[in-house]
Amino acid sequence: MGKKVVTMGEIMLRLSTEGYDRFTQAERFDIVYGGGEANVAVSLANYGFDAHFVSKLPDNPIGQSAVNHLRRYGVATDYIARGGDRIGIYYLETGASMRPSKVVYDRAHSAIAEADLEDFDFDAIFADAEWFHFSGITPAISKKAAVLTEKALIAAKKHGVTVSVDLNYRKKLWTPAEAKEVMTKLMAYVDVCIGNEEDAEKVLGFKPGETDVTKGSLELDGYKTIFKQMKETFDFKYVVTTLRESYSASDNGWSALIYDGNEFYRSKKYDVRIVDRVGGGDSFAGGLIYGLLSSDDFKYALEFAVGASALKHTIKGDANHVTADEVETLINGDASGRVQR
Amino acid sequence: MGKKVVTMGEIMLRLSTEGYDRFTQAERFDIVYGGGEANVAVSLANYGFDAHFVSKLPDNPIGQSAVNHLRRYGVATDYIARGGDRIGIYYLETGASMRPSKVVYDRAHSAIAEADLEDFDFDAIFADAEWFHFSGITPAISKKAAVLTEKALIAAKKHGVTVSVDLNYRKKLWTPAEAKEVMTKLMAYVDVCIGNEEDAEKVLGFKPGETDVTKGSLELDGYKTIFKQMKETFDFKYVVTTLRESYSASDNGWSALIYDGNEFYRSKKYDVRIVDRVGGGDSFAGGLIYGLLSSDDFKYALEFAVGASALKHTIKGDANHVTADEVETLINGDASGRVQR
Amino acid sequence: MGKKVVTMGEIMLRLSTEGYDRFTQAERFDIVYGGGEANVAVSLANYGFDAHFVSKLPDNPIGQSAVNHLRRYGVATDYIARGGDRIGIYYLETGASMRPSKVVYDRAHSAIAEADLEDFDFDAIFADAEWFHFSGITPAISKKAAVLTEKALIAAKKHGVTVSVDLNYRKKLWTPAEAKEVMTKLMAYVDVCIGNEEDAEKVLGFKPGETDVTKGSLELDGYKTIFKQMKETFDFKYVVTTLRESYSASDNGWSALIYDGNEFYRSKKYDVRIVDRVGGGDSFAGGLIYGLLSSDDFKYALEFAVGASALKHTIKGDANHVTADEVETLINGDASGRVQR
Amino acid sequence: MGKKVVTMGEIMLRLSTEGYDRFTQAERFDIVYGGGEANVAVSLANYGFDAHFVSKLPDNPIGQSAVNHLRRYGVATDYIARGGDRIGIYYLETGASMRPSKVVYDRAHSAIAEADLEDFDFDAIFADAEWFHFSGITPAISKKAAVLTEKALIAAKKHGVTVSVDLNYRKKLWTPAEAKEVMTKLMAYVDVCIGNEEDAEKVLGFKPGETDVTKGSLELDGYKTIFKQMKETFDFKYVVTTLRESYSASDNGWSALIYDGNEFYRSKKYDVRIVDRVGGGDSFAGGLIYGLLSSDDFKYALEFAVGASALKHTIKGDANHVTADEVETLINGDASGRVQR
Amino acid sequence: MGKKVVTMGEIMLRLSTEGYDRFTQAERFDIVYGGGEANVAVSLANYGFDAHFVSKLPDNPIGQSAVNHLRRYGVATDYIARGGDRIGIYYLETGASMRPSKVVYDRAHSAIAEADLEDFDFDAIFADAEWFHFSGITPAISKKAAVLTEKALIAAKKHGVTVSVDLNYRKKLWTPAEAKEVMTKLMAYVDVCIGNEEDAEKVLGFKPGETDVTKGSLELDGYKTIFKQMKETFDFKYVVTTLRESYSASDNGWSALIYDGNEFYRSKKYDVRIVDRVGGGDSFAGGLIYGLLSSDDFKYALEFAVGASALKHTIKGDANHVTADEVETLINGDASGRVQR
Amino acid sequence: MGKKVVTMGEIMLRLSTEGYDRFTQAERFDIVYGGGEANVAVSLANYGFDAHFVSKLPDNPIGQSAVNHLRRYGVATDYIARGGDRIGIYYLETGASMRPSKVVYDRAHSAIAEADLEDFDFDAIFADAEWFHFSGITPAISKKAAVLTEKALIAAKKHGVTVSVDLNYRKKLWTPAEAKEVMTKLMAYVDVCIGNEEDAEKVLGFKPGETDVTKGSLELDGYKTIFKQMKETFDFKYVVTTLRESYSASDNGWSALIYDGNEFYRSKKYDVRIVDRVGGGDSFAGGLIYGLLSSDDFKYALEFAVGASALKHTIKGDANHVTADEVETLINGDASGRVQR
Repeated sequence: MGKKVVTMGEIMLRLSTEGYDRFTQAERFDIVYGGGEANVAVSLANYGFDAHFVSKLPDNPIGQSAVNHLRRYGVATDYIARGGDRIGIYYLETGASMRPSKVVYDRAHSAIAEADLEDFDFDAIFADAEWFHFSGITPAISKKAAVLTEKALIAAKKHGVTVSVDLNYRKKLWTPAEAKEVMTKLMAYVDVCIGNEEDAEKVLGFKPGETDVTKGSLELDGYKTIFKQMKETFDFKYVVTTLRESYSASDNGWSALIYDGNEFYRSKKYDVRIVDRVGGGDSFAGGLIYGLLSSDDFKYALEFAVGASALKHTIKGDANHVTADEVETLINGDASGRVQR
Repeated sequence: MGKKVVTMGEIMLRLSTEGYDRFTQAERFDIVYGGGEANVAVSLANYGFDAHFVSKLPDNPIGQSAVNHLRRYGVATDYIARGGDRIGIYYLETGASMRPSKVVYDRAHSAIAEADLEDFDFDAIFADAEWFHFSGITPAISKKAAVLTEKALIAAKKHGVTVSVDLNYRKKLWTPAEAKEVMTKLMAYVDVCIGNEEDAEKVLGFKPGETDVTKGSLELDGYKTIFKQMKETFDFKYVVTTLRESYSASDNGWSALIYDGNEFYRSKKYDVRIVDRVGGGDSFAGGLIYGLLSSDDFKYALEFAVGASALKHTIKGDANHVTADEVETLINGDASGRVQR
Repeated sequence: MGKKVVTMGEIMLRLSTEGYDRFTQAERFDIVYGGGEANVAVSLANYGFDAHFVSKLPDNPIGQSAVNHLRRYGVATDYIARGGDRIGIYYLETGASMRPSKVVYDRAHSAIAEADLEDFDFDAIFADAEWFHFSGITPAISKKAAVLTEKALIAAKKHGVTVSVDLNYRKKLWTPAEAKEVMTKLMAYVDVCIGNEEDAEKVLGFKPGETDVTKGSLELDGYKTIFKQMKETFDFKYVVTTLRESYSASDNGWSALIYDGNEFYRSKKYDVRIVDRVGGGDSFAGGLIYGLLSSDDFKYALEFAVGASALKHTIKGDANHVTADEVETLINGDASGRVQR
Repeated sequence: MGKKVVTMGEIMLRLSTEGYDRFTQAERFDIVYGGGEANVAVSLANYGFDAHFVSKLPDNPIGQSAVNHLRRYGVATDYIARGGDRIGIYYLETGASMRPSKVVYDRAHSAIAEADLEDFDFDAIFADAEWFHFSGITPAISKKAAVLTEKALIAAKKHGVTVSVDLNYRKKLWTPAEAKEVMTKLMAYVDVCIGNEEDAEKVLGFKPGETDVTKGSLELDGYKTIFKQMKETFDFKYVVTTLRESYSASDNGWSALIYDGNEFYRSKKYDVRIVDRVGGGDSFAGGLIYGLLSSDDFKYALEFAVGASALKHTIKGDANHVTADEVETLINGDASGRVQR
Repeated sequence: MGKKVVTMGEIMLRLSTEGYDRFTQAERFDIVYGGGEANVAVSLANYGFDAHFVSKLPDNPIGQSAVNHLRRYGVATDYIARGGDRIGIYYLETGASMRPSKVVYDRAHSAIAEADLEDFDFDAIFADAEWFHFSGITPAISKKAAVLTEKALIAAKKHGVTVSVDLNYRKKLWTPAEAKEVMTKLMAYVDVCIGNEEDAEKVLGFKPGETDVTKGSLELDGYKTIFKQMKETFDFKYVVTTLRESYSASDNGWSALIYDGNEFYRSKKYDVRIVDRVGGGDSFAGGLIYGLLSSDDFKYALEFAVGASALKHTIKGDANHVTADEVETLINGDASGRVQR
Repeated sequence: MGKKVVTMGEIMLRLSTEGYDRFTQAERFDIVYGGGEANVAVSLANYGFDAHFVSKLPDNPIGQSAVNHLRRYGVATDYIARGGDRIGIYYLETGASMRPSKVVYDRAHSAIAEADLEDFDFDAIFADAEWFHFSGITPAISKKAAVLTEKALIAAKKHGVTVSVDLNYRKKLWTPAEAKEVMTKLMAYVDVCIGNEEDAEKVLGFKPGETDVTKGSLELDGYKTIFKQMKETFDFKYVVTTLRESYSASDNGWSALIYDGNEFYRSKKYDVRIVDRVGGGDSFAGGLIYGLLSSDDFKYALEFAVGASALKHTIKGDANHVTADEVETLINGDASGRVQR
């Protein structure tokens, strides 16, 4: 059993149409269970860590199915409280070419959004843990969840756990002002900060350059300016962002940038033919944590994270079902896609 | 285009597992949209009426899919307001033999539960209408919905519309005390009352006999006592109940009883091999309204209703997809199931 | 390779809804290819005969798929002419309980209905053949097909081939008067005649007793009267009928009656839980031909035919996918349905 | 309810194999109902018009399912006559890369091909209508349908309705000589004419330049010559064509050209990764009608039409399930395919 | 976390056809992973025990999928060794009515059949365990597996663990003589012995009465004679058998008999409409172990086991997905199958 | 019926996940039956030859299903012996973009691997045959199979049959040393040798140039050197290789090279968007044999082979379901993918 790692957040029921069907054509939904931090936990379990997911799920068969989904992929579910009214839902239709994928959220009033501090024993949760990961979604889902997140961070730090965050601004959940108020406070506990320009601006107030995320272009200089400010303000160990170039819903460019206070390192770029891009960012975070926990080389960690998440784009569902060996093969140069017999 | 008939209530997204799969086995959900009064509307559209459904649905593609589902089956959707946060959901797994079907509700905070009076123009809705049907579920979903129901009933009566109710007590939505307070008041507007013993007791406070609904037995005498009280108290034109004998989740006996103040008439009984029993009661109500609107013979109406709803048990989904001709063939004696070429 | 047997008729594309879905619910059709005589050919191939099917199919990929379907199940397709406009189609929804299965035909203008004599070389077809089977459907589909059938029968008799017919009256294809005119003439070539009371009356004009085929009852005496007349009039070697008791679309009683001029023999009766009853009669004919070709005991042949066709009712599709061994096991007494490991 | 628009033609049952399966591999067909003018009607209903489809369908459950399909997507079906023998069918397998999609038609003898004038009340149909659209397929399916089309056009003009045509030459239905004889006469009623070079030559006899439609190249000058002739001969208000560059069955270039008598305007070009290209031209016509009815700017109308039909290529089925908002977003510049949350 | 219980054996990939399709009709296989002892482990996990499964699986993604299947349903997989050549397979087609279900095995050379003693640390496995269950299949799959089983039993006894066996004679794996030689020796370690007459005779040599397992009848007296001999010979604490009455592949009677040395107790009998009867006996064993571990009342344990396994017959797959509460509801009398809302 | 052609080898059950699902996500496997030489036989049957496949399959319904699969696609199965323990299996997950497809083999102990000489009558098999094709897989599966292959080759030569081989090195089946020992001997019987650089080196010991098959580059000069050596050593009539440029799992370049002793001819190159690349090489061999049997022009044969196999990449399954006409259309220049109506 590998090192103990912990993620905390919401896991939702994802209902996706078949193939490229639009919602109004659907007669069936495919089911997976996912959410930012849950997806990271699955990645970490795949890489051999003792990955724990902290959340709350209703005590009914749908909640149980979410637990089972995590167990199936090796995530420890002992820290998931049971109770509350409902599991959050998101509906997904998969785009193609110039038609974007579309997500409809129905996540209000979920069990984790209304969870209480008593639902969790953070001392037990963080005992012997080495890493804690959360995203900007968790404190956004409710006031109670924001408090919960801070308590978790305090406990994590008390136990000497390294902390990473994926800023992940969600405009349906809160305004930039609300985000800034809550998140600025939480940054004090964070060692590794992942976020793109939009996140940096909306969540932390750092002005990006002139990158227009609906364009395919990338403005590396803008990132460098922001990363320096972030590093200075919050003393992060690493500031990291993925760099997505959205050519279309079917094809994206995919790379990443990391800053350790000294050096900006940009990864190799992959052109990916997309099967399912939901969870791409989460698989990146999972890969980065793996890399930083397994090696002292932050450039290797970044390449691993980018390779892992490039592969995620070829896999249906929220979670990334690849082994560390498969990622290594890719980042060591075999992107030929030849059949492996 | 036939007579104008109106039903009002909630339509939900129904997510059912494939075949007899349990929730924890499911990788896919089949989608239909249904709810008591929506199901009645589909039945009435099938029988050639100009059937209108009154409700509120979110202005997103899932709400639109519910609208489309009704349109597909011929229900007029012009009176459906659009807006609100979400569509209610229910999850269904289909039982077999001694394993019961199981329903998990996730319907709180639905658009119709939080709809406002301004969402509906009841004068337009009931203009030229001949029948209005609602169930005890609608006023139970929220205080606002209870008020809405009463306003609808007042308008219906103003326009001289005949009113039917299916009492349909739902213990997850309210207590007997709450039900009694709201429903007793609404009964003043009702001409035709459908409800079994449990409903009569929980919703209106009439003591049933000793029928135990988990047993296969039927206690006709108990019904007669109650029906007389109901008739006297509320001056219903007809009091009606279905009589389900649950031999198992796979096989049921199915008949009904009607009382017109003079006579108790019990229908023919069918033994049904069940494909999908959800919506059985709604298809009964639909058949009864058809019968009473098409004929003066309440016994014929009851036989039509029972035949129609027996057929519903053989059809997947909430709604009853049969024509009046098909029901007539059955109640006129051909239950042989021979292939129709 | 076993004895050469030949059947001739129409093979159609069968489009059936999934499970018990009604046509108006369908989003998908399951595909098989079938038709009375084609189904008999599949049965005979399963039993080890060198079974040939004679027909005509359009020279397009749908026609090819029908050919492939027959090849898959071991039927020789060399005598199938290619050309014409279309393959006939029938749509099927499967009933349950008191709801009957429903068939919608779209078979006019099919390639076989418009086939010419030159499409077939009957001398080659019947060379070395031991049995020829056709049904009353083939001459009914068109005037040309009726002529074709007679030419085939003449050639068969020239080659000393035993001939069986399944009368199979189809009211959508012709009137009793038309049927009688054509079929009476063809009976001169027939050795084994299969048909129930309705067929006997509609096709050959023999008055049945008072059996009402929509009832579950059976009127054996009526059959005996008719069979004697049929034997006398046409000098059939055997007159045979299946005896279906339609309790419902889900459950039937199934047995048969044979008359050899001396003795009436009624088979064992099976109560069958139905998976797919289309092709039940065809599998009976297939079983009977097997029995009569493999043994001198017509009672054994009848029991084999009834057992084979009882099994067919448990198999989806038009054709009967059972081996002779499986039929033997059943008719020798093991109807327990215990798992065979 | 928006402006009343009317389309008339054949709606067929489309049976398509799953994924990229060839016909000979298929065990299941996916079902949609579509046809040129029906597809235009669905587009127009999506954009908020009161869209009516005029046709005839058999009075059986398959015909009803076609009606239901249209209702589901908001098309008014009151002008669809019921009766006749059958619904036309087309089989579809979807190509990929260098393997083309393949269509097998089985549409002869359909209800609309054999419909009578008495089946339609054109005065009622065109009362208050603002637009009528038909294609060159409708008059091609039968002599009776050609007469019907002319009668419809006369009535449309009597009611002051704007008329558009999509020339759509189908070599399986008629010869160029036959097409020219019928279509030339009908052009007198047409305001907006859509057709590519092949159509212009085969249907109206205008010589195209040297464009070879099996090549990827485009010969704009040839179009200009032809468009001028068409405009002069028939006094069309607009002459329009789509410009498809078939790189392969998986990837196409897609743009369009319009001529108003003064100016040739070529739209933006999209490179589309194809999900389903059937109905691409119909979605273009639907978009163009929307554009011309909603704005005075024919260039905007063309861009809308091209954007709408580019999106159609990403959607399974014959019809285009997009809203006007979605098209606007695309033509205003966001083709990035980023997930919309 | 509940009491630690351990089962050991083979888990196979089960490939089953859809619905009632025969093997020769199949285009798809449904996948589950199951085997006698694995199925028992899933039952025990469902009832809240800390259930461990001991086996060996190949170190490839198919082996991993089997591990994941167990994890999904809560079984601890830490004691599963990884390596070897292959996972055993069994193919299943589901019978109906008089057509039996059919199993084709392809299990030779599986990882567990060729596992070594070094693959398992039995001291760790049985530390703190309270129950160990195995079946007669495990020692039958190979000589090495027979040795392994004995070593496991020795270790279990050393740790004071209660042992149960399900005799489960498999004629494809060994002869009665081979079975007797191996199994007789192993019975010394067994406390609770489950086996029907055929098992008792083939595995242990006790002559059954005249029960013919292909008949529906039951010969209780024969069982009593045998049970007494078994108890005397091996000093079992309990001797138990299920009593299956195979009316057909669709309907069975289901009950059980237990003997504690003093008293024969026969359970309530259920008539079950079968969805999937594979694993019925395993779910019985799981229920019995639950009952005996949770209560001192062996009659209650038997009723629980019978109720649990009756429910299993309504659930697809090898494993029994029911909670203890659901079983209690059934055995306390509610077999009505009414919808649970 | 065309010329008699024979192929010999193993046919396996292929179990593939749906879409791009990874093995650990699969709940269902799609079923086809395939293997190198069986795939070639299907190609040859499609092109109108009397194609025979020689192998051995277990006498159970799974073996029968493999036989049926071949029959469906027109391959004669009379030379398939029945018996043995099992059919070989391979599991397939389909890759996308930079994620490779993955094959897991479970083929040891298959019926053909353990077949005896007595299972086949090679004199009958090769009587009147014109071509025999085998691959380097067949002699690799077992020592017995290697002997069998040699006996087949001797018989083929005795009957004057032309022989082709696809070297197809499989590192899971044997080492280069083992391959060389067996294959060198067999080359004496071969007329046409197909193999890429890796095969040439591993199987025959010819040193390739510096082509790295995981790169997209191609090293034509290396091939030329090797081909000359091969020609000289074994006096092949033709030496041939496909040239795959693996840009990714989704897109490949595809062409081929042939050497007749005089001239090196490289075919046109296709860029293929991949649906299923398994069997690509087999479809090439099938096309090449067709070309060489139908024409004296080896360049045409190569173009046909490359066009045929390019099309195969767009078709799901192991086998190539295209007609010679479809290949001709492609190689004559229409790669536009326009819909064929």
